[in-house]
Amino acid sequence: MTRPLPRTATTFAPPVMEARRWLAESTLPAGMDLINVSQAAPVDPPTDALRREIARVAVEDPQAHLYGPVLGLPALREEVAGQWLTAYGGEITPAHVAITSGCNEAFCATIATLLAEGDEVLLPVPWYFNHKMALDMIGAVAVPLPTDAALLPDVAAAEALVTDRTRAIAVVSPNNPAGVEYPAELIGALYDLCESRGITLILDETYRDFHSSDLPLHDLFTRPDWDRTLVQLYSFSKAYRLTGHRVGAMLASPARLAEVEKYLDTVTICPAQIGQFAALWGMRNLGQWLAGERAEILARGDAIRAGFAPLAQKGWKLRGAGAYFAYLEHPFDAPSDVIAKRLVAEAGILMLPGTMFTPEGDAFGQRTMRVAFANLDAAGIARMIDRLAGFTG
Amino acid sequence: MTRPLPRTATTFAPPVMEARRWLAESTLPAGMDLINVSQAAPVDPPTDALRREIARVAVEDPQAHLYGPVLGLPALREEVAGQWLTAYGGEITPAHVAITSGCNEAFCATIATLLAEGDEVLLPVPWYFNHKMALDMIGAVAVPLPTDAALLPDVAAAEALVTDRTRAIAVVSPNNPAGVEYPAELIGALYDLCESRGITLILDETYRDFHSSDLPLHDLFTRPDWDRTLVQLYSFSKAYRLTGHRVGAMLASPARLAEVEKYLDTVTICPAQIGQFAALWGMRNLGQWLAGERAEILARGDAIRAGFAPLAQKGWKLRGAGAYFAYLEHPFDAPSDVIAKRLVAEAGILMLPGTMFTPEGDAFGQRTMRVAFANLDAAGIARMIDRLAGFTG
Repeated sequence: MTRPLPRTATTFAPPVMEARRWLAESTLPAGMDLINVSQAAPVDPPTDALRREIARVAVEDPQAHLYGPVLGLPALREEVAGQWLTAYGGEITPAHVAITSGCNEAFCATIATLLAEGDEVLLPVPWYFNHKMALDMIGAVAVPLPTDAALLPDVAAAEALVTDRTRAIAVVSPNNPAGVEYPAELIGALYDLCESRGITLILDETYRDFHSSDLPLHDLFTRPDWDRTLVQLYSFSKAYRLTGHRVGAMLASPARLAEVEKYLDTVTICPAQIGQFAALWGMRNLGQWLAGERAEILARGDAIRAGFAPLAQKGWKLRGAGAYFAYLEHPFDAPSDVIAKRLVAEAGILMLPGTMFTPEGDAFGQRTMRVAFANLDAAGIARMIDRLAGFTG
Repeated sequence: MTRPLPRTATTFAPPVMEARRWLAESTLPAGMDLINVSQAAPVDPPTDALRREIARVAVEDPQAHLYGPVLGLPALREEVAGQWLTAYGGEITPAHVAITSGCNEAFCATIATLLAEGDEVLLPVPWYFNHKMALDMIGAVAVPLPTDAALLPDVAAAEALVTDRTRAIAVVSPNNPAGVEYPAELIGALYDLCESRGITLILDETYRDFHSSDLPLHDLFTRPDWDRTLVQLYSFSKAYRLTGHRVGAMLASPARLAEVEKYLDTVTICPAQIGQFAALWGMRNLGQWLAGERAEILARGDAIRAGFAPLAQKGWKLRGAGAYFAYLEHPFDAPSDVIAKRLVAEAGILMLPGTMFTPEGDAFGQRTMRVAFANLDAAGIARMIDRLAGFTG
């Protein structure tokens, strides 16, 4: 009998680390600096005021250094519940909120409450690679859910894929990697499907703060007993530039959070306290500043769209652009992972190939690339487009 | 067909949270403050100097707020490798070290590289509950390994329990919950057993800084190819009072750490950066201070042993006392979880019952209790003993 593979051997190496290895192995073109659009993370630290607040807490508040509750700082859970109520309406209390060591952990904790060996979760393709990796390692099956020309899934297609082993549909909006915003109606229809089949909708809204709409992004929290069907995930990392502090959140039923508590206690005991204090201060004090950040990110997305013509002339297609990401279709015969490596060596651009966001051998993945453009200002975006237009594959 | 239980439903609620609930539901005896010996954690924050250093880093170093490498800060990995070489000898390089979001995550990552559904890990009883929970949730079997009068496992007994599904033996020294220090010879013999059977020894040395011996705690790192057999786990939480920062470490082969990287990237992306800077500064600057902390903890263990006579007269037995923990056998007919609740209401003491550290229904667990005494000074220990001696069950 062959020995079954241990958990980590069932999945692939982290794409971001893989891309760093390419970089280390490559020589950039002479005189060219690197344009790094591989990772979705602010490159600047938090505002001066927030850094001073973190320093103040470190010196003055002993709690910043000691274990806190497994499900997070009560004041932060309250603040999230309050601001979510304003944003979404409906029935949201602090008992529906847990703080996690980043949004990835929120996803891992969620699936641990839902899945047994061999259970299935539908993921729209292209998917967020850490969701796929988490499902691999928990022994579950990520069922690819195709998307249409707009990179959105079709609800009827999703329904056709639901089996008696399906436990959830997991979607990301605004989407990583595809950069598309899921319309409120689509999110509502996916919720309806999940509710009718007695499964869970996992809605990852890590990039919600950079959505282009000023309206509520969906009405799910106003649905009766929403917490029977919905788990919503969130990250403080992008909004307040706290990636290195590892603070995320999830909203779910108090009963599910009691299960989540088992997972979190076992894996990380509690979220880093100082990051929670930072997130709380950010939520209370940086609303105006965050509005400016959002405007800037939206302007960068506009710059991609507005400046895309030279690439379109070369056969590139802009398949999605929103929040931190643009998703491109390249015009070359080689698969995207080959193109991505050549882009480093020949154009000084590091971006992740669609092969990292799609099932193995997937033709769509081989034709596409993710651009995490949020760190490029308008001039940087123009430079990137210029280099791409000059790249011959 | 019955639906298989999702991961979290296969395990129990976190004991520390459960104990907090008892506390919330109980009334302390009139005029009595609580003696809380339930959690193994410093109650004081880091030294002033370390807190000022954290504040400095927060203001001055942007990296403190941004993503770092999945396997941790290179300088911290180097510092660990260097100090470990001094402490243990042998062959240890930074490439053998990963930094994790606390030592629990190091355990979870380790077992993810080792185990498939249904695989087995031997755990000496009493065990550390989060190890048991982690094994439950990964779909593995925690095989209870009995211990002797000194609460140490027998190597022949361990060997008899090894099957073709056994992938590891996991031990904690100094032990949580039993407070016993595993002799170097026993650790060596367990290693030999693991090596000869091609399985892994997971050695959790979270409490190594509070070991009573001034000699190397074992010779495992001097064994040829130690990293084929050994994974060592460590925590910065106790030594530098950084529990709220979530920083742990593990030492293993570079090949295993490449697998660990998949797990860590998916669950937490990187350890909290500011805590890593704090741990690094602590390692570089607080050696002398830590020696004093150790002396104080050892003195507290001595105070337990020296002051135990009144309890012995009432039929209590001191089964183990070392590092942060004493392990007691109570003289009452009721099981330890009932006794533990009564101790809150009648003696104002919160300690965890042996039932939380043993298989369900285990008679030994029902007779025993864990005392995390590290936060009690000598006077506090005397008060606790006094109250326990007056408690009639």
